[in-house]
Amino acid sequence: MILNGSNIIGFSDSRQSGESFYAVNPKTGQQLNTAHVQATISEVNTAAELAESAFQSYRKLSGMKKAKFLETIAEEIENLGDSLIEICMQETALPEARLKGERGRTVGQLRLFAQLLQEGSWVDARIDFANPNRQPVPRPDTRQMQIALGPVGVFGASNFPLAFSVAGGDTASALAAGCTVVVKGHPAHPGTSELVGRAINQAVKKCNLPEGVFSLVQGPSIAVGQAIVRHSLIKAIGFTGSYRGGKALFDEANKRDEPIPVYAEMGSTNPVFILPEKLKQETPAIAQGLKNSIQLGVGQFCTNPGLTIVDGSETAKEFEQLLSKEVEDLVSATMLTSGIQSAYESGLQKFKDKTTVSSLSQGKKGDDETQGVPELLAVKGKDFLADSELEKEVFGPSTLLVQTEDDKELLQIAKNLEGHLTATVYGTENDLKANEELLAVLERKVGRLLINGYPTGVEVCHSMVHGGPFPATSDSRMTSVGTAAITRFTRPICYQNYPEFLLPEELKTDNPLKISRIINGERQ
Amino acid sequence: MILNGSNIIGFSDSRQSGESFYAVNPKTGQQLNTAHVQATISEVNTAAELAESAFQSYRKLSGMKKAKFLETIAEEIENLGDSLIEICMQETALPEARLKGERGRTVGQLRLFAQLLQEGSWVDARIDFANPNRQPVPRPDTRQMQIALGPVGVFGASNFPLAFSVAGGDTASALAAGCTVVVKGHPAHPGTSELVGRAINQAVKKCNLPEGVFSLVQGPSIAVGQAIVRHSLIKAIGFTGSYRGGKALFDEANKRDEPIPVYAEMGSTNPVFILPEKLKQETPAIAQGLKNSIQLGVGQFCTNPGLTIVDGSETAKEFEQLLSKEVEDLVSATMLTSGIQSAYESGLQKFKDKTTVSSLSQGKKGDDETQGVPELLAVKGKDFLADSELEKEVFGPSTLLVQTEDDKELLQIAKNLEGHLTATVYGTENDLKANEELLAVLERKVGRLLINGYPTGVEVCHSMVHGGPFPATSDSRMTSVGTAAITRFTRPICYQNYPEFLLPEELKTDNPLKISRIINGERQ
Repeated sequence: MILNGSNIIGFSDSRQSGESFYAVNPKTGQQLNTAHVQATISEVNTAAELAESAFQSYRKLSGMKKAKFLETIAEEIENLGDSLIEICMQETALPEARLKGERGRTVGQLRLFAQLLQEGSWVDARIDFANPNRQPVPRPDTRQMQIALGPVGVFGASNFPLAFSVAGGDTASALAAGCTVVVKGHPAHPGTSELVGRAINQAVKKCNLPEGVFSLVQGPSIAVGQAIVRHSLIKAIGFTGSYRGGKALFDEANKRDEPIPVYAEMGSTNPVFILPEKLKQETPAIAQGLKNSIQLGVGQFCTNPGLTIVDGSETAKEFEQLLSKEVEDLVSATMLTSGIQSAYESGLQKFKDKTTVSSLSQGKKGDDETQGVPELLAVKGKDFLADSELEKEVFGPSTLLVQTEDDKELLQIAKNLEGHLTATVYGTENDLKANEELLAVLERKVGRLLINGYPTGVEVCHSMVHGGPFPATSDSRMTSVGTAAITRFTRPICYQNYPEFLLPEELKTDNPLKISRIINGERQ
Repeated sequence: MILNGSNIIGFSDSRQSGESFYAVNPKTGQQLNTAHVQATISEVNTAAELAESAFQSYRKLSGMKKAKFLETIAEEIENLGDSLIEICMQETALPEARLKGERGRTVGQLRLFAQLLQEGSWVDARIDFANPNRQPVPRPDTRQMQIALGPVGVFGASNFPLAFSVAGGDTASALAAGCTVVVKGHPAHPGTSELVGRAINQAVKKCNLPEGVFSLVQGPSIAVGQAIVRHSLIKAIGFTGSYRGGKALFDEANKRDEPIPVYAEMGSTNPVFILPEKLKQETPAIAQGLKNSIQLGVGQFCTNPGLTIVDGSETAKEFEQLLSKEVEDLVSATMLTSGIQSAYESGLQKFKDKTTVSSLSQGKKGDDETQGVPELLAVKGKDFLADSELEKEVFGPSTLLVQTEDDKELLQIAKNLEGHLTATVYGTENDLKANEELLAVLERKVGRLLINGYPTGVEVCHSMVHGGPFPATSDSRMTSVGTAAITRFTRPICYQNYPEFLLPEELKTDNPLKISRIINGERQ
C-alpha cells in the first residue's frame, strides 16, 4: 500500500486544505517524504455526518458480524506487512521488535473484542418477567441491555502508534460496542495512521459495511480536534495523552449544549513503594527490575514508575547506590519526537533546579539530539511532601527516589497522592501485613495495585483496569484497556412490554444467542 | 419520634445558624409548627469530614453487613409508623394511600439492594490467572472488581418525599455500594426528611457503624447545596429535580479541581406516539388510560406523559374529543408547593400565549389556591416542529396533543426530539411493523421504551432504566432506579499479583462468597 497523505473521509481520499505537514524521523531530524494534508473542519463535519449515517445500521449489526469485522481489520493490518513496521520505525524511532510486539498487541486486542462479541454476554442482559397477578398493581415485563452511544471521536496517542492509535484500544472497543469512529491521527506518525486507516476501510468494504463506519483526519491542528469534540453528532471521546490536552477536551465536551463523556487518560507517575524486609532480601534484583521498568520504551509508557519511595535505612542507601549504578550503565535512546525529548529535559531540569532535589546518576548520552538520557533523582520525604509539583509526571526514562524518615512519613506520602493509573508495593508477607493501611490508602488512589511487580506492561484481558482517579483520567469509572473498555461507549436501555418480534436477539425469551443473563434477579 | 428541626451531622443535632425556616401545608398555605434550622457551610464541612472518616471502614464492610444495615433502615422507617405519613401529608398534600404506597416502595428498594448485596455478584468480579509459561512474556495474575467511590452527596427530590428523598433510591444505592452519604433534604418537606434521617441514624447505631455514614443538612440555601458539590471529600452527586438545578450542579462539579460525576435526573416530557390501527381499535380505552397517567400524582411524576402524538385521521379527532371530555371530568388536586403550582400555571400560559397552541379542555378547579388544574392542549405537527420550546417539560397534570399530517411528519417529530426518560408507542402488530424506523429513532432518544403501556409507574427491579440521554439526565450511561443504580457509585480496580491473604473475599481463588465471576473470560 502506498501513502498519498490524504485524509480518509468515509471511502474518499480528501485533501481539502492543500496545507501539508510532514512526519519527522526523530533519529535524524529529517522530514520524511510524504506530504500529508492537514484536515479541515469541513472534513470533520463530513466525517461526523457519514459516521452518523453509518451508525444507524452499524449499531444494529449482530455480534457475530461485528466480530467478523474486527477480525478482518486485524487481518488487513497484518496484510500491511513490513511496510507498516518500516514507516512506523521511521516516524517513531521505536525499535523493530517493539513495534512488531505492539502490532501483535493491536491485532490481539481486536481479536479479543471479537471473542467478546461472539460470546455475547457483555451486553448485561436482564429480564424481569411480567406478573399480572401482583398486588396492588401488576408487574410489567421489563428487559434491559447495553446499546451503543453513537459516533465516537478517538484521538491517537503518540506513545503507542499502533496499540493506542488509529486501530488501537479506543477504536477497537468503540467499534465493538457498535459505535462508528472518527479518528484524529497523532501528527507524529501520520504515515502509520494512514496505512492503518486504509486497512480499516478495506475491512469496512470487505464486510459490506456502510461508508462512514470509519474516517481519519490528520494533522497538528488543535481546531480540528476541537471540532470533533464540539460536533453535535459525536457522542463520546477517547483520548490518551497529556493532562493539558485531555483536560482541555474534557472542558470542551462539558461546554457543549449536550455534554458528552470524555475518556481521557492523562498521565500518571505510578508510585512504587518498597518496604524494608523485601528490600533487604532482594536489593540487587529490585534495583535491576526497577531500572528495566524505567527504561522500557525510553520511559514513554503511561505506567512508567516515576516515583520510588523507600525508607531511610542502611539497606535503602545500598539500594540507592545499586540503582544509581544501574542507571549510569543505561544507554540513552531516541524518544518519539523532539518535542517530547525537550519536555523531558526541561521537566527534569525544573526538578533539579530545586534545592531539595539531587541528581544521583545519569545514563550515557549518545550523539543523537532526540535521545532521552535516563536519570535518577532523589528527594527527602519531607521535602517531597512540601512540594506538590514533584508528584507531576516527567514523561521519560527517569524516577524520583523519595527517601522517607519513617513509616509515618511513607504513609503520609501515600495519603497525599493524587490519582494515578497504578501503584506498586514491594513487600514480604511481613511487610504487607505491617502496612495494611498503606494498601488501603493506595486502593483509593489508583486503578491498578500491584504487589512485587512492575507497572509497565499492561495486560490486555478481562480483568485489566487501565484507568484511575482524576487527574490520571477524566473518568475513574472506566478502563481504556481490556474488555471492560467496551462499556465506555454504551448505555443501558429498558424495553417495557415489548412483543417478542420487536425484541433484540439478546433479550428474546428463548435466548437464541445462549448468553448468560440475569432473569428475575438470578444469573442464568 | 418528635421533630426538633435540627440538622443531623453525624450523631449530633446541629443548629449552628439559628436561622429558621418552616414547611408549608400546600392545602392551607399555613406554616407548620416546627422551626427547622437552615444548615451552614460549616455544617456541610463537618458532615463531609465525618463521611470521609466513616468511609474508610464502611467501604470495607462485607455485603452481608451492609445488607443488614439497609434492612435495619427499612425497619426503622416502618417503626416511624403513622407519624411519618401524617407529617408527610401535611408537608406535601399527597394523599395517605399514595404515601403509604411510596413508603412501601422506599423500604422495598432498600430491601432489594440488601438482597443484591447478599447475593454478591454485582461487584462484577473478574479473574485472569497467571501463566508463567506464556511467550514472549509471562502473564501476571490480575483480578478486577467494583469498589466504592467515596462519600456521596444526595439531593432530595420534592416529588417523591420518601422514595427519592432522604432514604430514597440515591441514598440506598450509594450506601449499598459502600459509600457514605450527606443528604441535602428538600426544603418542602423538612419534617419528613428529619424523621427519615433519624431512622437512618438509628440503624447506623444499631449496626455499630461509625458516626458519619449518614448526615442530613436542611434548608432552602443554594450555597449549602453548592458547598456539598464543591467539597473535595465528596466524590459523586445524586440529584432529581429541575433542569436548571441539575445542570447547575453538573457545571459546578466539573469546575472542581477534581471533577466528580453528577447523576442528575432533570425532567422529561415522555412522548407517547399513538399509531392509527391501535387508536382505531381502542379509542376510548387509550383516552381513559392516558387521562389516568396524566393525572397520576397530580402530574408530578418525572415520567408524566407531557406529549401525545397522533395522526390527523377521523379516529384521531374522535380520540381528541374523548380525551377532552376525560380531562374535563378530572378534579384538580393540590400540588406539592405553591411554587410548583405557579410554575405549572405559568408554563401552561406560556404555551397558550402562542397562536399555534389551543386549549382543548380543562379539569374542574377547586377552591384551594395550590391546586393544579388538569389541561389538554393541542398543536399541529408542523407548528410543533417549528418551536422547540414546546418540547420542554411543564411539570404538572397536562399533555400537549400533537396532531401530525402524515407518517413522515410523525417520524420527523421523533427525529427532532431531545433526550427523554421514556417514550411510548401505542400500536398493533401491523402498526409496529410499519413503524420500525420510528422505534429505531426513539431508541436513541430515551432510557426506556414502552409498547402499549403508560410511562408513569417506574418498576424497581433489576432491568429498569430510569435515565436517558441529555437533557433528561446528565449521564445517560446510568439509571437512578433499579439495582443497576449501584454502579453509579463505584469504579473498577485491578489487583495484580496479589497474595491470597490480601485479596478481598470476592476475588479469592476458592470463591468463599460463591458468587458468579468471569474466570479467564468465562462466566462461572
